[in-house]
Amino acid sequence: MRSTGMLIIISGPSGSGKGTVVNNLKDADIEYALSISLTTRKKRPGEVNGVDYFFCTESEFKSKRDQNELLEHAVFCNNLYGTPRAYVEEQIELGKAVILEIEVNGALQVKEKFSEAVLVFLIPPTFEELANRLTTRNTESRETIKDRLRRARDEIRLIDKYDYLVLNDEVGLAVDRINCIVKSEFLKPCRNKVLIDNLSEHV
Amino acid sequence: MRSTGMLIIISGPSGSGKGTVVNNLKDADIEYALSISLTTRKKRPGEVNGVDYFFCTESEFKSKRDQNELLEHAVFCNNLYGTPRAYVEEQIELGKAVILEIEVNGALQVKEKFSEAVLVFLIPPTFEELANRLTTRNTESRETIKDRLRRARDEIRLIDKYDYLVLNDEVGLAVDRINCIVKSEFLKPCRNKVLIDNLSEHV
Repeated sequence: MRSTGMLIIISGPSGSGKGTVVNNLKDADIEYALSISLTTRKKRPGEVNGVDYFFCTESEFKSKRDQNELLEHAVFCNNLYGTPRAYVEEQIELGKAVILEIEVNGALQVKEKFSEAVLVFLIPPTFEELANRLTTRNTESRETIKDRLRRARDEIRLIDKYDYLVLNDEVGLAVDRINCIVKSEFLKPCRNKVLIDNLSEHV
Repeated sequence: MRSTGMLIIISGPSGSGKGTVVNNLKDADIEYALSISLTTRKKRPGEVNGVDYFFCTESEFKSKRDQNELLEHAVFCNNLYGTPRAYVEEQIELGKAVILEIEVNGALQVKEKFSEAVLVFLIPPTFEELANRLTTRNTESRETIKDRLRRARDEIRLIDKYDYLVLNDEVGLAVDRINCIVKSEFLKPCRNKVLIDNLSEHV
C-alpha cells in the first residue's frame, strides 16, 4: 500500500522532552525525514547546506517569506529561521513522514498554513514533573524557569487545537505512541488516493 | 493515561473478511468489547440475553427505534436487528473500544447518529481478489456473486466517508493496523478530558 507522506509536528512546552523523543524516533516500517530549516545564520565549520540547514541571505529569506514559501518563521539571536514549504512537500510526495520539532506557537502557525499537518502535543506526566525537569537542568536562572512555567501554562490551554496528546513518561513509550499515530495516519483515505483509484478502476 | 473509550466500526464489502478480522482482534493494551445487537428473533438454545443478543418483542424494538435509542436498524429474514445506543455508550464510558462489525450502509447510518464513531473500511488487496474470495466460497450462485460485486463497486465509491482504510492482505496484519488505529484514537484530546483537566489544575 503506497501512501502519500505527511508532516508530523512534535511540539509541547519547554521541558516536555521534544528533542530527545525526536532523536529516538525510528520504526522499521516508517520512512522518517527531518524537516530542514532555512536560516540567515552563518554556516559553522562542518555544517552542510541542505543537510543541517538551508543557508541564505537576509534578502533571500525575506523574499521567500513574502512569497508564502515558509510554513512558519521566527527570529532567534538576531538570525532568521523558517520552515521551507517546498522541501516538506517534496518529502511528503516521496511518501515520507516529515518531522518538525517546534514550540507551540510555531506549531499552530504551521497548522494554519498547512492544515493536513498532524499536530502532536508532548506532555510530561504531571505539571510538577515539568517544573522538575526545568529545574534540574540547572542551566537556567530561577526567573527563566518561572517564565517557562508561565508559558507552559498558556500552552496547555491550547491542547484542544492539537490532533494527538502523547504522554512522555518514558522516551521509548512516547516513541511507540508516535509511531502508532504515524502508521494510522498513513491509513487515512486522503493519503491513499492511488489505492482508491486502483480499486475504482477494477469496478 | 485513563482515556474515554470509542466505538470502532469495522466495515467493508461482502468478502472483505470483516468477520475473521473481528474474531482475531485483540491487543494486550486495549480493552475491546463487542457491540451487542437488539433483535426480535427467537432466542436459540444456548444463547444468553445480554451476551449473544438483547432479545425483545417487536413492539419493544419499535418503541426503542422511535425513541432514537438505536444507532442503526435493519430487517433480516423477517426479524428486526439494531444496535442499542445505551450499551455502546456504557462501554465507552468504561474506557473500552467497542467493536461493531457491519456492512457499509449500516456503518454510514451509525456515523450519522454517532459522529465520534471511528469508521474502518476493510479492503482486499485488489478487486479481483474480492471476486475470488466471493467465488471460492462456493456457497453462492453466480447471480448472487454478480450482485455482491455490483454492490461492492457502489461501496468502494463511499470510501471517502471513512476515517481509515485497512488492507486485509493478511488477517494478522489487518489486526495490527486496527490495533494501531485504536491506540492512536485513544490519544486524541477529545478522549482525554480528565488528563487535560488534571494538567490545567496544576496551572
